[in-house]
Amino acid sequence: MSAPPAGPPEGLRSVVVIGTGLLGTSVGLALRAHGVDVRLVDHDPAVSVRAAELGAGTVGIEGLPRPADLAVVCVPPRHTAAVVVDVLAREVARTVTDVASVKARPLYEVAAAAVDSSRYVGGHPMAGRERSGPTAARADLFLGRPWVLTPTATTAPEAVADVRALVAVCGAVAVEMGAAEHDSAVALVSHAPQVVASLVAGRLLGASPVALGLCGQGVRDVTRIAASDPALWQGILERNAAPVTAVLRSLRADLDAVITGLETAPGADGSEAVLAALARGVEGRRAVPGKHGEQPRPYVVVPVVVTDRPGQLAALFAAAGAAEVNIEDVRMDHARGQPLGVVELLVDPGSVPRLAAGLRGRGFTVHD
Amino acid sequence: MSAPPAGPPEGLRSVVVIGTGLLGTSVGLALRAHGVDVRLVDHDPAVSVRAAELGAGTVGIEGLPRPADLAVVCVPPRHTAAVVVDVLAREVARTVTDVASVKARPLYEVAAAAVDSSRYVGGHPMAGRERSGPTAARADLFLGRPWVLTPTATTAPEAVADVRALVAVCGAVAVEMGAAEHDSAVALVSHAPQVVASLVAGRLLGASPVALGLCGQGVRDVTRIAASDPALWQGILERNAAPVTAVLRSLRADLDAVITGLETAPGADGSEAVLAALARGVEGRRAVPGKHGEQPRPYVVVPVVVTDRPGQLAALFAAAGAAEVNIEDVRMDHARGQPLGVVELLVDPGSVPRLAAGLRGRGFTVHD
Repeated sequence: MSAPPAGPPEGLRSVVVIGTGLLGTSVGLALRAHGVDVRLVDHDPAVSVRAAELGAGTVGIEGLPRPADLAVVCVPPRHTAAVVVDVLAREVARTVTDVASVKARPLYEVAAAAVDSSRYVGGHPMAGRERSGPTAARADLFLGRPWVLTPTATTAPEAVADVRALVAVCGAVAVEMGAAEHDSAVALVSHAPQVVASLVAGRLLGASPVALGLCGQGVRDVTRIAASDPALWQGILERNAAPVTAVLRSLRADLDAVITGLETAPGADGSEAVLAALARGVEGRRAVPGKHGEQPRPYVVVPVVVTDRPGQLAALFAAAGAAEVNIEDVRMDHARGQPLGVVELLVDPGSVPRLAAGLRGRGFTVHD
Repeated sequence: MSAPPAGPPEGLRSVVVIGTGLLGTSVGLALRAHGVDVRLVDHDPAVSVRAAELGAGTVGIEGLPRPADLAVVCVPPRHTAAVVVDVLAREVARTVTDVASVKARPLYEVAAAAVDSSRYVGGHPMAGRERSGPTAARADLFLGRPWVLTPTATTAPEAVADVRALVAVCGAVAVEMGAAEHDSAVALVSHAPQVVASLVAGRLLGASPVALGLCGQGVRDVTRIAASDPALWQGILERNAAPVTAVLRSLRADLDAVITGLETAPGADGSEAVLAALARGVEGRRAVPGKHGEQPRPYVVVPVVVTDRPGQLAALFAAAGAAEVNIEDVRMDHARGQPLGVVELLVDPGSVPRLAAGLRGRGFTVHD
């Protein structure tokens, strides 16, 4: 449960983190947990001081060996290329990487600049939160997540090794791919879903309290990421405009087909376009890998009724633990208007009888 | 934790459930828990037998007083009006209600039929799951959820009272409104989000394994409800075509604005349309009521690192319980490629120091 034995990896003893928001501060925290000398730089000095207070490193690069082993550029995507070029030109660090959600455009801009870009490795940790800033950071933000690296034919292998060491320290899983391949992939699995979530949430503005009172878990899930920082996402979308608009245009065509299907068969059966769109959604959802990067395993949902009081969940999980059942996932259903709720436990099918018996033995109402 | 003292409410001693899928079987289970004589009817006899085996009632209406106190029509929306009319014409029950997700069209069709519709009360429990069929049912499916009733000026008050008794037995919260108001509301907060989730999920079909490997919690949340039954949703969308297409057309206009914004300012800053759409999403998301029907309370997320072993969550919640902290919500982050994860506990801000101290005291790594 505690952090692994800390010690800086070979060749990664000094790291400069430029931009100390959520990602930069999280990188700093992870590196500090391994004893790396981390230096924090932000265009807003108060933000780097806050990150330092949180334990992410020391403000400023004074006294640091020059070049440092690694510079990690964690600024908003619109500034990524300029800062990378500046860091390369000033030889702040031996190797430079970044964490921007878009890769092709910064790569192009860095390659076009009058600097040696062979020590720059584009990077993108697939981790984030709908909260931002250093106070939202945590050392384990990247734990078990893919961290995309986009080296090119001219990238120095030693630079890739440096960034792989960073990824390892952060507990993430390095995945190498081309920048264009990355950008198309994230347009599909991240950027377009973000746009859609924001648009659905935006439509709720001005809805009557009565209508909002009918919101269920479905619309809550669809719109959760709509709470993300608009300016940050504007920068991401603009810098990945072509792949994102390609996906959005496809979605618009899909939407048109549904609208036309509903308009041409109003109230009638047999609007095949509507059925086809819904059926494709079921298949597409199945294609999403489950926990641990596997294909979805057939976990079973076991709903348990709990009261909304301290100790109830403790008793629930104590009972599950006593039954030696591993809980794969937990979901709390949000009850409305009364202090009762249903906790859904996702478990291996084989452990359901054991779990149900254990919970019932302690007075819980279980449905299996 | 156990069911409340059971006993049939006055005037609700015999109920016929027609259609024993997820909702009908759940209604039967809730009524049986109160000792109501529940009779199960389904066009597929095997399905009603399965519901009876699960404890939702007895198959068939033989020996039942005629008329019964209440008939609950739980068939797919495309059949709702026809079945309601048939039940009214045959005087199977004193009062008839339904659970269809669409209300205006069935109401119109029933009113247009040659039956006395004063004893019909349209109903819609705001509860569902992405799974369907009797085996997905549970007695507490409706616990704390809104259950919309759409009586008209010609509805008998006694009929409304009968259905309110049903809602109370199911532990739901009755909300009366007009059928058209209901249909517009659910188009916005349920039907259009369902379409959008299905379309986003459908776009993942045919994506490369590499791209799918980059799926994070965001796209998982956006597409969760895409796993729902396509034929059922086709029926819902078709029967609420006008309100749904109105919302979808607005979304298409919003989508066009984003696409145009990205196309006209490719890679440049200042695509105000994109920023505006994202900012509206933040506001709209804030408008979604939180747990218990309240406006969102400022809960704090406390991330805790756990290993993927039995007993870890038990220890975690035992520690929270010992610290007398009420967990408002739980989220398990899905780690990829390694048996570690982060559990996010949502708690009242005031209890964070107590929780963090309690967890750390038992060896957990906590970020507050």
